[in-house]
Amino acid sequence: MSSPTPLEPADAGIIREVLDGRWRETRERARELAKDPRFAVEVGEGTETQRARVLERMGALAELGYSKLGFPTRYGGSNDIGASITGFEMLAMGDLSLLVKAGVQWGLFGGAILHLGTERHHAAYLPAVVKLELLGCFAMTESGHGSDVANLRTTATFDQDADEFVINTPGVSARKEYIGNAARDGRLAVVFAQLMTGAESQGVHAFVVPIRDATGAALPGVRIEDCGLKAGLNGVDNGRLSFDHVRIPRDNLLNRYSDVARDGTYTTLIDNQTKRFFTMLGTLVQGRISVAGGAGSATKVALTIAIRYGDSRRQFAGPDGAEIPVLDYLAHQRKLLPALAKSYALHFAQLELVAGLHETTPDLDAPLDELPAEHPDRRELEARAAGVKAIATWHATSTIQTCREACGGAGYLAVNRLPGLKADTDVFTTFEGDNTVLLQLVAKELLTGYRDHFGELDMMGTARFVADQAVETVVERVGGRRLLQRLRDAAPSNSEDGTIFDHDWQIDIFTWREKHLLETLAKRLRRAASADDPFAVFNAAQDHLLAAARAHIDNVLLAAFVHGIENMPAGPEHELLVALCDLFALSTIEADRGWIWEHGRLTAARSKSLIAAVNGLCAALRPHARTLVDAFEVPDAAISAPIAWPEDAATSA
Amino acid sequence: MSSPTPLEPADAGIIREVLDGRWRETRERARELAKDPRFAVEVGEGTETQRARVLERMGALAELGYSKLGFPTRYGGSNDIGASITGFEMLAMGDLSLLVKAGVQWGLFGGAILHLGTERHHAAYLPAVVKLELLGCFAMTESGHGSDVANLRTTATFDQDADEFVINTPGVSARKEYIGNAARDGRLAVVFAQLMTGAESQGVHAFVVPIRDATGAALPGVRIEDCGLKAGLNGVDNGRLSFDHVRIPRDNLLNRYSDVARDGTYTTLIDNQTKRFFTMLGTLVQGRISVAGGAGSATKVALTIAIRYGDSRRQFAGPDGAEIPVLDYLAHQRKLLPALAKSYALHFAQLELVAGLHETTPDLDAPLDELPAEHPDRRELEARAAGVKAIATWHATSTIQTCREACGGAGYLAVNRLPGLKADTDVFTTFEGDNTVLLQLVAKELLTGYRDHFGELDMMGTARFVADQAVETVVERVGGRRLLQRLRDAAPSNSEDGTIFDHDWQIDIFTWREKHLLETLAKRLRRAASADDPFAVFNAAQDHLLAAARAHIDNVLLAAFVHGIENMPAGPEHELLVALCDLFALSTIEADRGWIWEHGRLTAARSKSLIAAVNGLCAALRPHARTLVDAFEVPDAAISAPIAWPEDAATSA
Repeated sequence: MSSPTPLEPADAGIIREVLDGRWRETRERARELAKDPRFAVEVGEGTETQRARVLERMGALAELGYSKLGFPTRYGGSNDIGASITGFEMLAMGDLSLLVKAGVQWGLFGGAILHLGTERHHAAYLPAVVKLELLGCFAMTESGHGSDVANLRTTATFDQDADEFVINTPGVSARKEYIGNAARDGRLAVVFAQLMTGAESQGVHAFVVPIRDATGAALPGVRIEDCGLKAGLNGVDNGRLSFDHVRIPRDNLLNRYSDVARDGTYTTLIDNQTKRFFTMLGTLVQGRISVAGGAGSATKVALTIAIRYGDSRRQFAGPDGAEIPVLDYLAHQRKLLPALAKSYALHFAQLELVAGLHETTPDLDAPLDELPAEHPDRRELEARAAGVKAIATWHATSTIQTCREACGGAGYLAVNRLPGLKADTDVFTTFEGDNTVLLQLVAKELLTGYRDHFGELDMMGTARFVADQAVETVVERVGGRRLLQRLRDAAPSNSEDGTIFDHDWQIDIFTWREKHLLETLAKRLRRAASADDPFAVFNAAQDHLLAAARAHIDNVLLAAFVHGIENMPAGPEHELLVALCDLFALSTIEADRGWIWEHGRLTAARSKSLIAAVNGLCAALRPHARTLVDAFEVPDAAISAPIAWPEDAATSA
Repeated sequence: MSSPTPLEPADAGIIREVLDGRWRETRERARELAKDPRFAVEVGEGTETQRARVLERMGALAELGYSKLGFPTRYGGSNDIGASITGFEMLAMGDLSLLVKAGVQWGLFGGAILHLGTERHHAAYLPAVVKLELLGCFAMTESGHGSDVANLRTTATFDQDADEFVINTPGVSARKEYIGNAARDGRLAVVFAQLMTGAESQGVHAFVVPIRDATGAALPGVRIEDCGLKAGLNGVDNGRLSFDHVRIPRDNLLNRYSDVARDGTYTTLIDNQTKRFFTMLGTLVQGRISVAGGAGSATKVALTIAIRYGDSRRQFAGPDGAEIPVLDYLAHQRKLLPALAKSYALHFAQLELVAGLHETTPDLDAPLDELPAEHPDRRELEARAAGVKAIATWHATSTIQTCREACGGAGYLAVNRLPGLKADTDVFTTFEGDNTVLLQLVAKELLTGYRDHFGELDMMGTARFVADQAVETVVERVGGRRLLQRLRDAAPSNSEDGTIFDHDWQIDIFTWREKHLLETLAKRLRRAASADDPFAVFNAAQDHLLAAARAHIDNVLLAAFVHGIENMPAGPEHELLVALCDLFALSTIEADRGWIWEHGRLTAARSKSLIAAVNGLCAALRPHARTLVDAFEVPDAAISAPIAWPEDAATSA
């Protein structure tokens, strides 16, 4: 068994600077905000009290200018997408209902008006949206169609005589479902509906539909129901919306990509209906990146609490009679430290997503005219955002659960925050795209990229099934070879060639795994084109397809981790993060070692040495666990769990 | 790839009879009880409303005679332990706060008086306990000692002059913590404390301590705090108890195993202090079996809801244009069906535990005199109960989480039950013994058994660390060879020798895995005896030790599954359960195939065929998924989730 040399004490502040990255000022500002007693963590409030408080907090965010970041300057914004997403991410360390309501209001509702509307909508709504004088909903999901939103059933039929659209809900399954801001506060909704001109369907478009009058009463024809109690996020007023032939002016079509003229003529910048739909959805990629970031922050809070507790909580006496801190036990380290390493990997991947979004989003202050040329990296970014969202939110769900258990009975008390973190983030794996569906989207992009790179495979018949389950456009893949080269350049080996601590070996395993999964997947799906039952062929390969997507995102995470630490100055902080990166890489390989062996890339001896290496890294990193969570610099107000402050308990003992 | 022949339609009623087992009348009675509107599932009640309602329900249970089952006839009981545990298990399909409060009152508090007390305590308390005229607490856990209860700090000092014990809490870490019935309803507490006679400590003993007067006010010297909001189970009034030199009569010592005479002389039936402590805890094995059963019931409710929903929920169109039920997708089957198979395995293991407890518990109606001879199977049962409790509760946590995600946004709504099931059962992995600690206990028993069977290994120095973390006595192991033979007798192969569907091969893998883990573990721990740092040697092997315990419980589950179906008449129901048993066995092997290969028992070709076989079994079982959950016969009132009743939604559409 080989293990790294002992690690020197490191400075959490130096690591924090690396983690804070490009929008560090936004982070510092958010840490200041957390000190404001208006944003203190509360537990045990009833639903209506919580909703009222969250609305007050929304007002405070608007007052402090938080809502401006992602909007054009001329409508009261400050045109900084990167800061906007970073601020959102930081908000997730505190009140997660506030996070989600802010996301609904400024990300989804405001974002839809911004990205799908034109000047007339921007001028009419955005200033009030930013100032929170106008609250609104993003009404896409229906009871019967959540993942498959291209087939939603609400209709918007153009009535040429009246120059109006008629919005209608044809049945229970077409109700707009789980809509934030609907049950209590929203006045308008951006409603996604099948646009009908004459007898012709033009596919899904977005419409601005008033739902409440100035007194808060539902408007005629609009039925609003409350979704009631949820597992968490009860400060968000989710509701259901149904429309009984509700009439809106023709101008309420958000006409960035398509329009209907006075005479009923339909025009569009994107002729292909599927492509048009995915382009519309693509403008909303911001939501997925935001959810991934929010999941990451909540996970950091949970890890901070559990590691502080594990560092001080003692149970069972050791050989010298003194009781042993529970984090000294290998089983406890195994629960928390690989999860911590993955949180770092996800953090670095998130930094890259945010920067990528910032760079590839057209300047919000530029005038709208024609459809702008798409940034060449945009489609890859969209797929990567989908994949990282899936992995980050599953990681949040499992890690917060583990932290709860690692804190024992104390972890079950609401005052210790873990129950709230778990319950509030639980639905992150579902909203902004069900994770399984999102991974299929990633795989589809990889397959398409594969075809582009390696020649003519007829994927059209087979990919139909994949395509039908995807919710975004086909994007170009980051080739495995390009990634490998970048990683090799960035991460010189820190040990002998060919050992498991050799970065080249780790990277080879990661990239080979993705490539092999993809090659064999393409072969299997190709068969579906000529199969009698193409669905059966596709379906039998679904686990294979998901494995390929996961392998790709693992690659993305490793690349981001390596990239994130490559420019750190030499010193104990760099050494510590290299060891943490090793733990991420080796624990990932360890978890999938059965598959890697089956495909000929691992001997039994090396496989066993992986387990020993992960254990050795756990032992080596254990003394630095507190430093590694301190580097997140979760605000003290967000670490409100008494179990995270053993000094206080000792004082009162 | 081999796959089983298609399965014929099966009758859920026939399977239900097999599952209901020996105490089927108790189950039928519980299903009737669920129809009583007093026990209807409620969501969204505030804590105090919920506590009041749960207390009312406790009264109804007592009125209906549910509380009698586990007590002696002469004190108002009906002396049927098996029925008592089975009734408790069924209760877990409904109100889980009621379940836990019933467990505290009649299982822990009543059970402690019954098993640790003598006639004078029985006569004084049991009739009122059974009738719910007296509510009480089981005050063992302290803030500073949860798993390591042998070292709790509360003291009970005998004052010979006054002929009293003085109960005292020496500091914050000695507060009794998370105590059910403490915050609101309890009048008495069974308090576990270090018994001091003169300057001498006699170890932990149990004392009856009044905590509230008839008006409900805390008695002098007793401090009661409310634990406040929890993740779930908010109908249970958990609190903290501290005692400031509270005096109780000498007779309040529960003196089944030890006593203090008027002159302060300490006498005991069990001289060894450690053995005495573990014997006291051993009488409480019932609690662990009850928790395992409760976890199983909650999991069955979740699987019933998710499978009914997955069977009817459609998303994305197939080749013929019709939308596909989500349970037709392999990824969805992979989420739910192996979990369903494991739930069956756990159910059969639970039937055996309950019967074992019933058989090995001395007749409650027999008079107490000397310490009765221990039933030869009792110690094995205690360790098996600990292991099954750990695996069953982790299975509940992961499966209910999976069901929530499998139901998408609908799964996040409280009305669909999954949030409550998740939140209420979450702490099951912690209470009645932290799962990781319990698995260590199992491993310790296996090691001791190993020594007994295979000769003299000096485990004393090394086992000290294991022993210090265990909370029960050393028990004899069920030998791997005995289990293997029983399995071979019970399960004739249903396919060619040596294929993965060959039961002999599956059983060989399971038993060899346990044996190999155990042999190598014994060698590693032996080294600890002569090591400079024995803790380091033990700690480095902790994951190995936990793996051995898991492998043993996997064996127990497979044996129980095979045993459970061996006497079924031939027919489609038997065929269906054989396929489900294959899915349990093969998905368990698949999950650990990396380790099995590393130790030389799997070729790459066979390993890949395992994956294909699990996929094939998922496809074969999918049409019968509804039958398999119908066979649980969860009462309709407990399947209160609207998503589980698609017919109703269709009617209202």
